[in-house]
Amino acid sequence: MKNTFGSSVSLTIFGESHGTAIGAVLDGLAAGIPVDEDYIASQMSLRKSSGDISTPRMEADSVRIVSGVFNGKTTGTPITFIIENQDTRSRDYGELAYKARPGHADFTAQMKYHGFQDFRGGGHFSGRITAGIVAAGAVAISALRAKGIKIGTHISSCGGVKDRPFMNISEDIDKLSGLPFAVLDDACREKMTAVILEAKAEGDSVGGILETAVYGFPAGVGEPWFDTLEGVLSHALFSIPAVKGVEFGTGFGASELHGSQNNDAFRSVDGNTVTATNNCGGILGGISDGMPIVIRCAVKPTPSIYKEQQTVNMNTGENTTLQIQGRHDPAIVHRARVVADSITALVLCDQLALRYGTDWLVQPYKGVEENVNENNTGASAP
Amino acid sequence: MKNTFGSSVSLTIFGESHGTAIGAVLDGLAAGIPVDEDYIASQMSLRKSSGDISTPRMEADSVRIVSGVFNGKTTGTPITFIIENQDTRSRDYGELAYKARPGHADFTAQMKYHGFQDFRGGGHFSGRITAGIVAAGAVAISALRAKGIKIGTHISSCGGVKDRPFMNISEDIDKLSGLPFAVLDDACREKMTAVILEAKAEGDSVGGILETAVYGFPAGVGEPWFDTLEGVLSHALFSIPAVKGVEFGTGFGASELHGSQNNDAFRSVDGNTVTATNNCGGILGGISDGMPIVIRCAVKPTPSIYKEQQTVNMNTGENTTLQIQGRHDPAIVHRARVVADSITALVLCDQLALRYGTDWLVQPYKGVEENVNENNTGASAP
Amino acid sequence: MKNTFGSSVSLTIFGESHGTAIGAVLDGLAAGIPVDEDYIASQMSLRKSSGDISTPRMEADSVRIVSGVFNGKTTGTPITFIIENQDTRSRDYGELAYKARPGHADFTAQMKYHGFQDFRGGGHFSGRITAGIVAAGAVAISALRAKGIKIGTHISSCGGVKDRPFMNISEDIDKLSGLPFAVLDDACREKMTAVILEAKAEGDSVGGILETAVYGFPAGVGEPWFDTLEGVLSHALFSIPAVKGVEFGTGFGASELHGSQNNDAFRSVDGNTVTATNNCGGILGGISDGMPIVIRCAVKPTPSIYKEQQTVNMNTGENTTLQIQGRHDPAIVHRARVVADSITALVLCDQLALRYGTDWLVQPYKGVEENVNENNTGASAP
Amino acid sequence: MKNTFGSSVSLTIFGESHGTAIGAVLDGLAAGIPVDEDYIASQMSLRKSSGDISTPRMEADSVRIVSGVFNGKTTGTPITFIIENQDTRSRDYGELAYKARPGHADFTAQMKYHGFQDFRGGGHFSGRITAGIVAAGAVAISALRAKGIKIGTHISSCGGVKDRPFMNISEDIDKLSGLPFAVLDDACREKMTAVILEAKAEGDSVGGILETAVYGFPAGVGEPWFDTLEGVLSHALFSIPAVKGVEFGTGFGASELHGSQNNDAFRSVDGNTVTATNNCGGILGGISDGMPIVIRCAVKPTPSIYKEQQTVNMNTGENTTLQIQGRHDPAIVHRARVVADSITALVLCDQLALRYGTDWLVQPYKGVEENVNENNTGASAP
Repeated sequence: MKNTFGSSVSLTIFGESHGTAIGAVLDGLAAGIPVDEDYIASQMSLRKSSGDISTPRMEADSVRIVSGVFNGKTTGTPITFIIENQDTRSRDYGELAYKARPGHADFTAQMKYHGFQDFRGGGHFSGRITAGIVAAGAVAISALRAKGIKIGTHISSCGGVKDRPFMNISEDIDKLSGLPFAVLDDACREKMTAVILEAKAEGDSVGGILETAVYGFPAGVGEPWFDTLEGVLSHALFSIPAVKGVEFGTGFGASELHGSQNNDAFRSVDGNTVTATNNCGGILGGISDGMPIVIRCAVKPTPSIYKEQQTVNMNTGENTTLQIQGRHDPAIVHRARVVADSITALVLCDQLALRYGTDWLVQPYKGVEENVNENNTGASAP
Repeated sequence: MKNTFGSSVSLTIFGESHGTAIGAVLDGLAAGIPVDEDYIASQMSLRKSSGDISTPRMEADSVRIVSGVFNGKTTGTPITFIIENQDTRSRDYGELAYKARPGHADFTAQMKYHGFQDFRGGGHFSGRITAGIVAAGAVAISALRAKGIKIGTHISSCGGVKDRPFMNISEDIDKLSGLPFAVLDDACREKMTAVILEAKAEGDSVGGILETAVYGFPAGVGEPWFDTLEGVLSHALFSIPAVKGVEFGTGFGASELHGSQNNDAFRSVDGNTVTATNNCGGILGGISDGMPIVIRCAVKPTPSIYKEQQTVNMNTGENTTLQIQGRHDPAIVHRARVVADSITALVLCDQLALRYGTDWLVQPYKGVEENVNENNTGASAP
Repeated sequence: MKNTFGSSVSLTIFGESHGTAIGAVLDGLAAGIPVDEDYIASQMSLRKSSGDISTPRMEADSVRIVSGVFNGKTTGTPITFIIENQDTRSRDYGELAYKARPGHADFTAQMKYHGFQDFRGGGHFSGRITAGIVAAGAVAISALRAKGIKIGTHISSCGGVKDRPFMNISEDIDKLSGLPFAVLDDACREKMTAVILEAKAEGDSVGGILETAVYGFPAGVGEPWFDTLEGVLSHALFSIPAVKGVEFGTGFGASELHGSQNNDAFRSVDGNTVTATNNCGGILGGISDGMPIVIRCAVKPTPSIYKEQQTVNMNTGENTTLQIQGRHDPAIVHRARVVADSITALVLCDQLALRYGTDWLVQPYKGVEENVNENNTGASAP
Repeated sequence: MKNTFGSSVSLTIFGESHGTAIGAVLDGLAAGIPVDEDYIASQMSLRKSSGDISTPRMEADSVRIVSGVFNGKTTGTPITFIIENQDTRSRDYGELAYKARPGHADFTAQMKYHGFQDFRGGGHFSGRITAGIVAAGAVAISALRAKGIKIGTHISSCGGVKDRPFMNISEDIDKLSGLPFAVLDDACREKMTAVILEAKAEGDSVGGILETAVYGFPAGVGEPWFDTLEGVLSHALFSIPAVKGVEFGTGFGASELHGSQNNDAFRSVDGNTVTATNNCGGILGGISDGMPIVIRCAVKPTPSIYKEQQTVNMNTGENTTLQIQGRHDPAIVHRARVVADSITALVLCDQLALRYGTDWLVQPYKGVEENVNENNTGASAP
């Protein structure tokens, strides 16, 4: 399966950057979930370019839902989101039909699609395609929140500037909700913005790290092999353009610790089993342990830079140079953050539906299964 | 799908650490691939415990192939590998039926399987289950090598000691082949061993990083969404017990670079398009670019340590302490390395079969598709 | 996976009968396949209601392709077909919100979606949803034809009137192409129409049998288990609303034969292996044998009839009667026929891509694999 | 996916008729389900050859469970069944290495596997491979029965002799349970046996029809597209060797009825909604309606007959004749019946797990979801 992801709850995406429309089909979500078009619009606006630190391309990104919603609620059948492309200036991209942009998918697209790909603006490889994911993700995020499961992502680092880590995860997620530039330490926003603008002034770009936390997720969800929670989450998260690494909990840092440092002691608090630390990022043996799930995604610097670069003419096979024109982002971490939230939400809806059945998300009662213990999730032992 | 991974070429694994037998079913591999039982045995021996730096549990790990091989070659139908368990001392594990070992899956297994899981020796969560993956992987590795595609993994770091990076990837992979303790810098072997033994002496454990390289992989394989090469590889690699992070190319390091540093310039060399650097790890837009694929997996320190730890009695819900007995590994990176090779090979066989058809692996000619250009893979531009 | 079918080539469908729009996403088809919008429109017109023997609801059914086609050819990325609903008269359906129509999915939809389903006009269960399948199928049918593989379906029986069987399959398929009412024996058209009109006059409806043939399909495609050609074809064909039986070759008739009657003798003709008869319908052991594939689908009579029927009020649980209003088809076999062609084409494109790789459909040469022998397909031994 | 079927509950099968061993891996079944090895053995014996009407090949078919069962109950992880082959007389099959048996998969296997297939006794295409399905199916059948869901299959017709149809489905299923030759009308057993022996005496074979009923299955399970209950059941059932047609309820017969005859009126009985007739076979719009599910499979006559047949020498491509030796069944309907039960049970376990979650089968309470109404299933309205 290519542009479709998920099993019980699945997402199919389509579109090209400069094509007619982009969008997504979200299938398998329980019937009866409220669909709040204002919330979808607000999530879309978090992904949109804004101000000096993003591309000047301005898209309305208004989402038309053409199926799967009836009287404001999901019907249980596929929900289709369509976003028409509007501000396409394809004349900027002529030269890119044959000069492969370094760091972009132009060359690999040529190897795969033999020249038939829509090369304009990156075509189907464009970050723009994530708009459909964000629209669908908004429905999933709302549905999870109604069950007490919250998701938030902050820019853990950008261009070398580091945000503070998550502390009180529940409160931190609430703080991040709706924040246009998602950092936990307010002082860090100005510093990161400055670094991005500095790179932009040089015709260059910066990358960063996104850290996502999930609060309130029940224990006992996931598989030992091969559909570990880490496996299914990373599988989907690597679709975010520019993500080149995914780690959970202490992640790569754990490789330098001793077992006695990295193991999370189990503790009983008010009758619930929690862990004193959360180095495992809420996942042991591929299965959730009821503590917050913590994920970090490495985002490479945007490959579209204005500096002259060496490349190859794909028609002649000869060396040449390339000076990218067009409208580009000096950084995309701040825009990709809502995509990380969305993909995480969609994957977790699928996992929950597989574990507890397709209707779990709309069942009014909590704790119907003995191991869904709200008190067990997110608390840190003293 | 749970214990099955892959689409055109798929692997199903089964077994528990102290059960009757473990094994794997490898399906979809082309008919006519030679199956070398000696090579399988040699790969199995790389995974086995050995000497002071591994568990004293000794398993023959002899592999019985009961289907799918006829006259020494694959039939095209499922190949089943069965490995009987022999040296099981289940009496060591009694207390672990109710005390959750920190860092292990005991607690999450209880949440998922409600006490019916086979807890002995970690049951189905045991690293021992990877033996079936290694047996199947040996067939895949051989098949790829016959097509000019080579895979090798070294211990990039262990307990803080760092090996040198890959340099000439083709030669480095050849060097690693069959090496019991896989490091590229021979001097580093002794240092890592010392660190492992030091941790063992303290009843503790260490982790590390595995770096895998694939040489000779054709350009144009993979998908933009969601089955990016990074996505499908990470999905499977996170099944290696203790892996908590996966990155490609420069990975997390790329998040601190500028675009002008991280972009890999395209260069024409002898009529082939290569890149001057390989920060992208051979993958752009989710699709191979013909350069070596480079993957790094973070392995957490083995959770089974002999130091006393705090935990919870899963029967009573009360706090208690735990002193693990039994036979355990002070480090598993050196044993996990052949698992990384195996999983990588299996995933790539699947990707190649999806791209070029089920028989590609046994087609005698090369370059039947225009974008399979052997000269295009692995060379670095001057 | 629910509204998505296929592995290498897949189709996702969406929409409700009286919603905003319906459509489909076709993914995985090779890049470079010509997309002929006129041919799509002509296939759509075969599915549309027409004249006295269909529903008076008139839909333009104009197809908008919003992604995946560039310069008139497939890009290799998802092709999205959108068909806006226009002639919706939802007022007709008020009573049907709570009275389950016998033979329809109203009651089972209520059991599954708990009242949140869009009940208007059958919602997502409507035969109207097949319009997206036909649009996508038109691209698949064209692509197969360019490789010498032809598909055609005739109304084998309708309301008790029987068409003649396939004789020269290649010629018969050509004859059926574009025929509005697809029968092989022209005299039979009038008889079937009369039977349909007779049922209509009584406020009743009739069913029938669709027989599909595939000519030129290569030998060696399919699987022994579980993805037998019969299995994957039937899986998809049972999605055609009202199909309640699927058989291959002699099908149910074979159950009454002796082995000596049913076995198809192999014969060598001009160096090719063919069978003297084709009782197996071109499939042995789940795999194509190069002879025409022959499929028969049983279509039940349209459940929407105007006669008063007994049913239950789903709100109160009490017995009641129902007199269906609205616009309905006295028969749908003639409209479903192009859906059978389309689904068959889509499934076979997927099977071919799995077998020979994603680019096979656009490879200009034939017979690259030794078992693709054009002469071997469709000929009958003397 | 090839030899693996199912999503939440899946089955992987392996083995060749004359190889070392055959078997199956059953994954995803809930933890805590009792595994009764005696019941498995009794189901295996129903599949075994017996007496004059089956092949003289005698296999012990003793099943060894090597994983996934602990203390007599499922662990929730893969259950592996291994059946060693014993009575293999491969010398009988020498000529069949190059002479394609009519009606068998020898020729299509050659086209797919290029001569590397294990041709002995049909290899992986042999009906013997169903033994693993029966072993796994026994666990599924038991688990369903514990939830009040019963499955039974009878030989509806064989060699032209017809059994009586299902009448009281619950009682009829009980009657069929454990019956070696499964007919509802006892008088019919002798007649069918006589027909089989008559065919055998002539060196010929007969086919038949298997009719399967499921009692107590909840309403609201299945999908409108593409995973209709009909679709997923038929997909799997076509894997039973020799099945060439699958129909539900009235099936092909419905194609000759009027809507007013075929529609099943809904009736309220004791507060439950049932249908007065069951022409739809318990499935409307791809979703269960709570009435018994009724499936009919057409089984072609066994292709291994002793009469001389025309065929082709696959090595030389020349016409030749073939006189099959070896040990073969003059009919397989009576042996295939337990395979139909098993596959149906496995598919339904998967469907239930997808709908209600992985633990539904072991949840002690019934009716947790409002639409699981035991009274609603199987009763016929007066």
